[in-house]
Amino acid sequence: MKLLLPDTVSLSLQLPAGWDAVVVDSAEEIPRQHWDADALATWGPSARHLDSAAENLRALQLVQSLSSGVEAILRRGFRPETVIANGAGLHNRTVAEHTLALLLALVRRLPTALEHQQRHDWSRELGGIQKLHPGDRVTTLLDARILIWGFGSIAQTLAPILTALGATVTGVARHPGERAGFGVVEAGRLQDELPATDVLISVLPATESTRGVVGADVFDALPTRALFVSVGRGDVVDQSALISALRTGAISGAALDVTTPEPLPTTDPLWDAPNLIITPHAAGGRPVGAERLIERNLRALGGDGTIQNRIDRSAS
Amino acid sequence: MKLLLPDTVSLSLQLPAGWDAVVVDSAEEIPRQHWDADALATWGPSARHLDSAAENLRALQLVQSLSSGVEAILRRGFRPETVIANGAGLHNRTVAEHTLALLLALVRRLPTALEHQQRHDWSRELGGIQKLHPGDRVTTLLDARILIWGFGSIAQTLAPILTALGATVTGVARHPGERAGFGVVEAGRLQDELPATDVLISVLPATESTRGVVGADVFDALPTRALFVSVGRGDVVDQSALISALRTGAISGAALDVTTPEPLPTTDPLWDAPNLIITPHAAGGRPVGAERLIERNLRALGGDGTIQNRIDRSAS
Repeated sequence: MKLLLPDTVSLSLQLPAGWDAVVVDSAEEIPRQHWDADALATWGPSARHLDSAAENLRALQLVQSLSSGVEAILRRGFRPETVIANGAGLHNRTVAEHTLALLLALVRRLPTALEHQQRHDWSRELGGIQKLHPGDRVTTLLDARILIWGFGSIAQTLAPILTALGATVTGVARHPGERAGFGVVEAGRLQDELPATDVLISVLPATESTRGVVGADVFDALPTRALFVSVGRGDVVDQSALISALRTGAISGAALDVTTPEPLPTTDPLWDAPNLIITPHAAGGRPVGAERLIERNLRALGGDGTIQNRIDRSAS
Repeated sequence: MKLLLPDTVSLSLQLPAGWDAVVVDSAEEIPRQHWDADALATWGPSARHLDSAAENLRALQLVQSLSSGVEAILRRGFRPETVIANGAGLHNRTVAEHTLALLLALVRRLPTALEHQQRHDWSRELGGIQKLHPGDRVTTLLDARILIWGFGSIAQTLAPILTALGATVTGVARHPGERAGFGVVEAGRLQDELPATDVLISVLPATESTRGVVGADVFDALPTRALFVSVGRGDVVDQSALISALRTGAISGAALDVTTPEPLPTTDPLWDAPNLIITPHAAGGRPVGAERLIERNLRALGGDGTIQNRIDRSAS
């Protein structure tokens, strides 16, 4: 049995008996001598790579993506018998860490501190004796009320760390209830929650129903001290409404790791919105635990267990 | 019984029976009508305020500072019968939070991201597919080896959060052993630990024996990928050695919330050291839990329990 591995990430696998692994160039077509492959793992593959795999790997049983999103793979026309599995969960820790970095940079006003540093100015406003909760600003996560919209595995990785820092975390999702020990309200009740929210975090995926949902009505309902952080997908956010909210002070700051489009064009007004931090889709990009997922799913192909993260292709 | 409270922080106290509280101006002398006070709480008091208290409050049983450091109070000549207690512990959570903000900003290269943002540049170097551990750089706290030098209550508040983010934390202190579940090596063995250290954090207090201890020998022993964060007291760090280490690439980045002197003069070369974040002593400045400490120590004056955070004045 032959597994093709991407050259875009270094993996040290303990393959099940009977399996061999070959690293192939993720940017190029699959070389003819590997058209007999039984499984293909992908990480940042080119369209040409995927097209070649869909067309030529006639024995292919599994495409194991290391990305959370597999839209590009589903479009390629892999045979129905080929199982497609995504990399959900592999990015929880890195994305949670980046989200925390962005949020703390806003809370601790690091962009403003860097501006003062450039001017060689020891700011009396940022340092020294401060109010814990000045009212017009969120200056600590202690006692902060945080809503995380999209309460999947990334949010559930982040939430306990926010709690450890003294925040109260509530999830927002399609279905209310309790998940991983956190209360979750349904998205339809979001407007009721926003006025008492210090921080709104979006980890929403890009779907038809999430496009532009973080818009003017959301920013208007938040208190002016509120902060917004977006690390899910860019098109969830109405960027014009965000620019307006930052310019008018409807909210006091925001950080985006994802935008529409990506890369963000040089001329986009988002770059110059006040009190905004933009990082270039840098939160994840580094699958963690890919080896265990691949090993598990190869064993599942051999009848030992079930495929994890299997995509329901009947739905697409 | 009369308690004088500072006007520099808002406190809602539940005073023990028999106590009344009066708020006085922390910048000014104690008004004559309050010279009968039994206890004085201070937060950012002027020298004049403390001098007036030491001279005129003849019935004073307790000076309760909300700061960790009480050097200024000890110098004032309060009568030996007056108990002096500090605010150790009130700043653990805010200082730990700021330390984490600085460290994550370095790890996630937020200053560089902000530079790209100013140029309207979507950096391919910062975003997209990345190595988890590129070797020449610390890009995540996952698997990071962190040394915290000065392993008191602030470090013990920070360490579990770093652990939750995937780091391995070791303390450095005068006495080795285990504290709060973390291994602590003695300061004399620091040099052995540094070569395998990704992040060094100083939470050292200012004492005769800590002056300048973070110097060239420390920076030289760290790997070039290492990051350094200082939130204790400024004079622990040999700033010339730090500037040199950053310029030569002996370490890859640093963040200081404390400097020597403070405020840092406009002409100081530290401002322009590469890969350095400076915040103006902004980590703490907001006592958390001051009410409980004051209430407890007033009860202790009445014979109920012992004074918490009492300073041993025989040692000074």
